[in-house]
Amino acid sequence: MQLLEKNSTLSQTLKQRREKLAQLIETPAIFWSGIAPSRNFPANRYSFRANSHFLYFAGLPLENAAIRLEKGKLDLFMDDSSPDSALWHGELPKRDEIAAFMGADRAYPLSELPAYTAHAATIAVGDSKTYQQQCQLLNRIISPANAPQGIDLDLAKAVITLRLTHDRTALSELRQAASVSVKAHIAGMQATLKAKTEAEIRGAMEGVILSHNMQCAYNSIVTVHGEVLHNEHYGHDLHPNDLLLADVGAETENGWASDITRTWPVKGKFSSTQRDIYDLVLAAHDACIEKIRPGVEYQEIHLLACFIIAQGLIELGILKGDPTNLVEMDAHALFFPHGIGHLLGLDVHDMEDLGDLAGYERGRTRSDRFGLGYLRLNRPLHSGMLVTIEPGFYQVPAILNHRELRAKYEKVVNWSRLSEFADVRGIRIEDDVFVTEFGAEVLTASLPNKAQDIENLVSQPRD
Amino acid sequence: MQLLEKNSTLSQTLKQRREKLAQLIETPAIFWSGIAPSRNFPANRYSFRANSHFLYFAGLPLENAAIRLEKGKLDLFMDDSSPDSALWHGELPKRDEIAAFMGADRAYPLSELPAYTAHAATIAVGDSKTYQQQCQLLNRIISPANAPQGIDLDLAKAVITLRLTHDRTALSELRQAASVSVKAHIAGMQATLKAKTEAEIRGAMEGVILSHNMQCAYNSIVTVHGEVLHNEHYGHDLHPNDLLLADVGAETENGWASDITRTWPVKGKFSSTQRDIYDLVLAAHDACIEKIRPGVEYQEIHLLACFIIAQGLIELGILKGDPTNLVEMDAHALFFPHGIGHLLGLDVHDMEDLGDLAGYERGRTRSDRFGLGYLRLNRPLHSGMLVTIEPGFYQVPAILNHRELRAKYEKVVNWSRLSEFADVRGIRIEDDVFVTEFGAEVLTASLPNKAQDIENLVSQPRD
Ligand SMILES: [Mn+2]
Ligand SMILES: [Mn+2]
Repeated sequence: MQLLEKNSTLSQTLKQRREKLAQLIETPAIFWSGIAPSRNFPANRYSFRANSHFLYFAGLPLENAAIRLEKGKLDLFMDDSSPDSALWHGELPKRDEIAAFMGADRAYPLSELPAYTAHAATIAVGDSKTYQQQCQLLNRIISPANAPQGIDLDLAKAVITLRLTHDRTALSELRQAASVSVKAHIAGMQATLKAKTEAEIRGAMEGVILSHNMQCAYNSIVTVHGEVLHNEHYGHDLHPNDLLLADVGAETENGWASDITRTWPVKGKFSSTQRDIYDLVLAAHDACIEKIRPGVEYQEIHLLACFIIAQGLIELGILKGDPTNLVEMDAHALFFPHGIGHLLGLDVHDMEDLGDLAGYERGRTRSDRFGLGYLRLNRPLHSGMLVTIEPGFYQVPAILNHRELRAKYEKVVNWSRLSEFADVRGIRIEDDVFVTEFGAEVLTASLPNKAQDIENLVSQPRD
Repeated sequence: MQLLEKNSTLSQTLKQRREKLAQLIETPAIFWSGIAPSRNFPANRYSFRANSHFLYFAGLPLENAAIRLEKGKLDLFMDDSSPDSALWHGELPKRDEIAAFMGADRAYPLSELPAYTAHAATIAVGDSKTYQQQCQLLNRIISPANAPQGIDLDLAKAVITLRLTHDRTALSELRQAASVSVKAHIAGMQATLKAKTEAEIRGAMEGVILSHNMQCAYNSIVTVHGEVLHNEHYGHDLHPNDLLLADVGAETENGWASDITRTWPVKGKFSSTQRDIYDLVLAAHDACIEKIRPGVEYQEIHLLACFIIAQGLIELGILKGDPTNLVEMDAHALFFPHGIGHLLGLDVHDMEDLGDLAGYERGRTRSDRFGLGYLRLNRPLHSGMLVTIEPGFYQVPAILNHRELRAKYEKVVNWSRLSEFADVRGIRIEDDVFVTEFGAEVLTASLPNKAQDIENLVSQPRD
């Protein structure tokens, strides 16, 4: 395990994080890392992903470990691997070495943990074995992570305060993830002219991520049916007039994520209808990024994208009326039915295990408006936040053929004009944007997004 | 979902399988497919892998579904996706279409299942949510899959009888998995001269598997430290004198696995010591395959490999004494500490969820001998079985530096001669072998394994 070779400043970062936590909450906190689930039989396991709160304060993806934080002190609980396991897994670093590397104050075998659980708060993990351990050791029923209670809620709020903005160590990891994802997208574009199926593009893209010893931060979307928003199948053939939508992002070994979407023409050249819509989505994307700075409400950025898309669709003759009115009646959501983006960090939807507790400012809840309800982030922006900006245009049959929606928007859509855009099923352009004191820094800026640049990349295949 | 586009003979195959099952057991059987585990937060899921027994009788990787088999009849229980989910996941095939494609006799929503569970046997699945459902619906505590009781044990035995040998549909899927894995290994070899890290080779290999719209059947081993038998890290740099060991296999969309290992020199040329050991491991491999035919005990094949390795190590001056005696005292296991192979089918260790129930002939149990205890299969071979043959040679520090083992084998090892083979840390050669009436058919035969051919492949890099 190369676990301990990098990140010489990790222990300092971890110390700062737990000292900040101690300023927010006095209760001791215990975080469990969890275990890898099995894939059909016990010895065949999915690749392990540690719980993100654990990762934030422990810095390393240790399996079946726990940490206890109190007043800025860090205790590590994990077992050394058995002598037998050296035969199969090699010599792993010892608990004491890991503890020293992390800057832990003390280190114990897991069997000691029960002696240190009194009055501790925690956040429920996803895997049920570890969750049962949490309940047993804390001797109480722990509410699910998306509905924490009492001291656990206090802890969750304190953790959110920390994780909402990123320190230098986090930012460095996030940049690495972004940089590898950029390479994956370029490889995907350059593999397209020679590819016959979605799966081939996916293989080219994920191969790059694996080649950098990273994993995918989420299940890739690589499809010529971008209108299926969460399409996780890769079975379609590519046709020359298709657009290919690829939403693919890497995550570093320590769990920091990236999240990029590009949409490109399979034959290396947009049709004029595809190009019109592409440029519109890009205009919305650019305007949103332009608007990002501390203090701005993220929902305002969402609404700006809605307005630009509505306005553009009027100019293209697809929508009719006044853009402000159209957005107020959610007509934009016929074609842009999701939110403009979300928090990004250790999770691709950062801290979504906590429900909307991280994404929504205290006192705010999801709107029931068709055009706002899917917004995952509704807070004023702060310097140090990382968000995605990902406007899109889709022709989703389930929406456009929906009887009530169709009736409601019958008169604001020019349906026959729309039918001329049949070759535009789904377009999304997504970048990862760091909020700085002065505005926005696009971590994924090295990946082209202008139509002409995209065409050039696709048209220059690599062998 | 392209679920229903292939496999036009699937329904006939499924009918044959359940009619055979009905000949072995009268009790109705219910199999659950399970659900995908989450990766840190609910919406971020690992890719779904259906339970293998479900797959065997249902043929399709349907999530959160159940099938009931009785007297050759098949009932499917699953819910159609909600209208809302069409927005996110597109229009999925309906339960009735799926049922028709499978040749199910009846199809119901999941809510109907409780009415059909009386007196049914089952096999416990791995994910705990589904397992709880199984217990609740059958109204009893179901023993873990590796220790089934009562009617569940009867069912497990019947299923094993079927799954031990493969029908034509299964074989066709197994061939596809093998063929894609062969391409992945060739890509790995051809990527090596230009690669600097293990991760790059892994990326090249798994990229090929993904490009064919398959997944990995298990976590790949791609390492210059082949002596770490279950090394699942990819962080080492490649050095010119290293051997790279790659144990990588694809699995088809319907879950049928392959399992191939090759070992190649990073610079395209074995050293003389590497070549000597490579040729010895290959000799053991070839002799084992030569010996395969119906009626032969798999343990005899294991012991043949042990003998050939012992004999070869004597010839190389590493071991001293008589090969038969050396094998009897397990001296071969100093360098070949695992079994010669295992069953292969829907699982890479087929039916290992049932513990040794499938791998070991009734009445047999694991040996406690150092050189036999890791054998996963101990049965006479039958026509229609698929097994791996995977001899190896490793210098495992945890073994060679183990005080008791070192003392026990002090006199049969020429330790100074062994030190001349320091550049041979781990070699394994693994192929997938189908047992036919007349002998063996190697499903992975199109992948070269002779030292010279391997060198040639590595030395001809692709751009
Ligand atoms: Mn996103
Ligand atoms: Mn194997």
